[in-house]
Amino acid sequence: MKHFLSLADVSDLNHLIISGIEAKRNPFADETLGKHKTIGLMFFNSSLRTRISTQKAAANLGLNVIVMNVGQDSWGLEMEEGVIMNGTKAEHVKEAAAIMGRYCNIIAIRSFAELEDRDKDYAETVFQQFKKYAEVPIVNLESATRHPLQSLADCITIEEFKIKERPKVVLTWLPHFKALPQAVANSFCEWMNPMNVEFVITHPEGYDLDPKFVGKGQVIYDQDKALEGADFVYGKNWSSYTHYGQVLTQDPSWMITEAKMALTDNGKFMHCLPLRRNMKVADEVLDGPRSLVIEQAANREWSAQAVLKEILLGLNV
Amino acid sequence: MKHFLSLADVSDLNHLIISGIEAKRNPFADETLGKHKTIGLMFFNSSLRTRISTQKAAANLGLNVIVMNVGQDSWGLEMEEGVIMNGTKAEHVKEAAAIMGRYCNIIAIRSFAELEDRDKDYAETVFQQFKKYAEVPIVNLESATRHPLQSLADCITIEEFKIKERPKVVLTWLPHFKALPQAVANSFCEWMNPMNVEFVITHPEGYDLDPKFVGKGQVIYDQDKALEGADFVYGKNWSSYTHYGQVLTQDPSWMITEAKMALTDNGKFMHCLPLRRNMKVADEVLDGPRSLVIEQAANREWSAQAVLKEILLGLNV
Amino acid sequence: MKHFLSLADVSDLNHLIISGIEAKRNPFADETLGKHKTIGLMFFNSSLRTRISTQKAAANLGLNVIVMNVGQDSWGLEMEEGVIMNGTKAEHVKEAAAIMGRYCNIIAIRSFAELEDRDKDYAETVFQQFKKYAEVPIVNLESATRHPLQSLADCITIEEFKIKERPKVVLTWLPHFKALPQAVANSFCEWMNPMNVEFVITHPEGYDLDPKFVGKGQVIYDQDKALEGADFVYGKNWSSYTHYGQVLTQDPSWMITEAKMALTDNGKFMHCLPLRRNMKVADEVLDGPRSLVIEQAANREWSAQAVLKEILLGLNV
Repeated sequence: MKHFLSLADVSDLNHLIISGIEAKRNPFADETLGKHKTIGLMFFNSSLRTRISTQKAAANLGLNVIVMNVGQDSWGLEMEEGVIMNGTKAEHVKEAAAIMGRYCNIIAIRSFAELEDRDKDYAETVFQQFKKYAEVPIVNLESATRHPLQSLADCITIEEFKIKERPKVVLTWLPHFKALPQAVANSFCEWMNPMNVEFVITHPEGYDLDPKFVGKGQVIYDQDKALEGADFVYGKNWSSYTHYGQVLTQDPSWMITEAKMALTDNGKFMHCLPLRRNMKVADEVLDGPRSLVIEQAANREWSAQAVLKEILLGLNV
Repeated sequence: MKHFLSLADVSDLNHLIISGIEAKRNPFADETLGKHKTIGLMFFNSSLRTRISTQKAAANLGLNVIVMNVGQDSWGLEMEEGVIMNGTKAEHVKEAAAIMGRYCNIIAIRSFAELEDRDKDYAETVFQQFKKYAEVPIVNLESATRHPLQSLADCITIEEFKIKERPKVVLTWLPHFKALPQAVANSFCEWMNPMNVEFVITHPEGYDLDPKFVGKGQVIYDQDKALEGADFVYGKNWSSYTHYGQVLTQDPSWMITEAKMALTDNGKFMHCLPLRRNMKVADEVLDGPRSLVIEQAANREWSAQAVLKEILLGLNV
Repeated sequence: MKHFLSLADVSDLNHLIISGIEAKRNPFADETLGKHKTIGLMFFNSSLRTRISTQKAAANLGLNVIVMNVGQDSWGLEMEEGVIMNGTKAEHVKEAAAIMGRYCNIIAIRSFAELEDRDKDYAETVFQQFKKYAEVPIVNLESATRHPLQSLADCITIEEFKIKERPKVVLTWLPHFKALPQAVANSFCEWMNPMNVEFVITHPEGYDLDPKFVGKGQVIYDQDKALEGADFVYGKNWSSYTHYGQVLTQDPSWMITEAKMALTDNGKFMHCLPLRRNMKVADEVLDGPRSLVIEQAANREWSAQAVLKEILLGLNV
C-alpha cells in the first residue's frame, strides 16, 4: 500500500480486515517492522480515539511517533498555489509537506471539512497537497470527506459480530444541533459497498449523501421501515450535502432508542464516537448489551495497525 | 496495587518509600517491567513537574507513554450520568474512559478542583467515573482533593533529610491572592498521619481543612508558636474549606522568611511548587541551605516510579 | 561540548559540519549513545522544523524525548531576580530550570525576541537563567538573538552544494509586513565569519545588524550590486536593530525573483523557512532548480544530531 486516503488505496479489503483481527490477537508480532522509521501525526483538528489509537498502533509496530498539533504547535498553512502570502498563514504547504516528508517516513493527517464551500471541502486540498509534495505515504486520520481508518474498524467490528453470512446494515442519520461533516457517513457508505451486506441508508429528506459514496446503498427516508430486520444499526449525524453544511432539522424522533432497536432483528448498535447521549442515542441503548461502540472504538487500534503494517511493508520493498 | 488515588490504595507505605529511594539509586533496575504496556497521561489542567516526572518515571520502567491535553487536544467530557448532552461537552466520560482503558494499561489523570461547589469537588467525579468505566488502574496526578504522588515524594524527602527519629513537621498556610485548591494540603495531612512524625498544622482561622484529612494533626492558629522547634516546615497556600474556595486573608505576615525559620530547630523548608517568591516565601529562604524544594521536586520522579512499579507488578500477576 | 548557545560553544566548526554530514549518511551509527538519557524540549514559541527535526535527531541517538509547550502545557515563568511574584507568572525560572535539570540530561529551549526592549532581548535572559540554574547542557532552539542549529544546517548545506573553494555568499534582507527578530540573520553572519566564503550582507539603510554579528561581512545597501556573482543567496527578513523592532520599509523591490537571481553566478537560493511566497520570494525561484530550501531544512535533522552527539559525548566523559 502506498497511501491510505480512501478505499481506492486498498487492493484487498478482506486481507486488510483479517490483518486487523490478527493484530488484535497478537499486537507485537511485527514490533520490529517500524524500526528506524518515523511517523508524523499532524492534527489540524481535535482528536481522542484517532490520536491515541494511531500512536498505540505505531508503537506496536516499533515506529518512532511524532505528534504535532498544527496551528497550535506550529503555523497556519497556506494551501492555495500562486498566492501572495500576505495574510495570516506564515507557511506554504509546499514547504511544510516537503519537509515533513524528509523528517518522516509516513505522514498521517487529520483535517476536517470547514462546511462553508462544498467544492473546496470535496477537493480535499490538504491531502492532495501533502500527497503531491511530501513524497512519502500519507494516511488519512479523517479528511473533509472521508474517515477510512474508522471505516476499516467498522468492517472489522461487523466481521467480528455478524451472525449471518450477509447481515443487514443500516446507516441512520441522528439529530444534532451542530453542523457536522459528512466524512464518517460517506466513508462508511464507501466501505459497505464492497462488503457482503445488505446496505440501507436512512435519513430525513434533504440529507442525501453524495451519490458517489452511496453507491449500491438503498436509501429509505422512513427510519422505522429502514430499521426493520437490521443486524447492525450504524448511527451518525451529518449536515446537508445538497444544502451544504446546513442543519435542516433536529427532529428528535430520529434518536435511537430501545423502541427503535426493537424494530431490528436483535440488532447491534454502532457509532464512531464522540456521541452526545440522549440527543443522538438514548442511554438505554448505549448502556445495554446491543451497544458495540466501545468494541468498535477499540478496533481503531487494529485498523490503524493493519494499515500502517501494509504501508511499512510497501516502504521496505 | 490496583489504583493510586489516595493513601487508602497503599498497603505498605514504608515499602513504597523504600521503593522510591531504590529507584533513585538505580533508575533502570526495572526497565523491562513496562514492556508492551502503555500509560496514558490525561491533563485537564497545566503541569510541569507532574508531566515531566511521570513521563520520565514511565520511561525508566520501559512503558510506552501517551500524553494528552484534554479539552485542548480533544473534546470536553461530560461527567454527569443521564443528562441530555446538548451543551458544550461533546463526549461522555463513560465512552472516553472505557476507550482509554482499551488503549492504555494504566491511565493517569490530572483534574483540579473548580472551587465553586465543594460537594462536587469533594465527590471526585472525574476519578470515580474513570475508575468505574476504564477497567484499568487509575493514577492520581492531582485531583480536586488530593495530590498523592506529591505526598509520597514529600515522605521520601523527609525520610532522606530527617536527623531525628521522630521529627516535628509543620504544615503552614502561606498568603496568596488567588484561590487555590486544598488538594496538596489535604494530601500532605493524610500522608503525615501514618508517618512517625509530630505533625502540626498552622493557618489563619477560617482556613481549617476537612477534619477527615487533618486526622491526628494538631492545629495551632499562631504560626510563630507552631514553628517552634520544627524540623520541617511545609509551606502551601489554600483557599478556605469552610467558606469554600474563598480567599479570607492575604496577611503578608504569614510569608516564610529567615526570621520565621529562626524559630525552628534548624528546620528545612519544603514546598510542592510552583511557588511565588517573596509573596509566599522569601528569596533568602529559597536560595539558602534550608530549602529542600528542588530535592523534593526531583523526588517526584521516584515517587511516580515507585507507584507505577507497584501497579505494573499488579498487572503482571 | 558543554552547552550549545552560540558559535562560541563550538571548538571545531569543521568537525561539527563533517559530523552532520556523517549523520546524514548513517543516521543510526550512534543509536545507543543516548541510552538512559532524556532531552527536554521546551517551546516558549511555535515551531515546525525545529520541533520535528530535533525530536528526530534525538531519537536517532537513542535519547528519550520529552516535549513541553511552556505556557500552554505549564505556567508562565518569571525570569527576573528578586521580584515579588504577585503578577501572572506563577513560577520562577530558578525553580523551573533547576527541576528540569533534575529530570533531563539535556534541555533544549526555544524563546524568541519580544522586540520591545533591545537590551532585554539581547541579554538572552531565558537562556542565561537556564544555563545558570539547570546544571545540565542547554541547547538553543532559537533564542532572541541567535538560531545556531539553523546556522549549522546552513553551513552543512553550503558545504554540500558549493562548487568553488571559496564561494560568494550573500545574505539579503527580504520585505515583510510583520516585525521579525534578527536572530536568524545575526546567527548566519556569526557562522559565515569563520567559513571560507566571501560574505556580503545587503539590506535597506536602517536595517544594519549588530556589528558584533556582522564581523568581517561586507555591507552593501544596493541589492543588485550585492547579488552580482553570488553563489548562494540567503534570504531573510528582519526588523530594524537600530530602530529596534520597527518595520522601516516593505519595499517590494527587495523580493527575490528570477530576474534578481540572474544577477548571480548561477546562484542557489537559501531560506530558513517558514517563508511567505510571492512577498519575500517569488514562486519561480522556490519552485525552480535554484532553491535549496528543502535540502536546507532537511539538514536541520543532521545539525541537531551533530550537536546532540557532541553534548552526549561530553556527558559520558
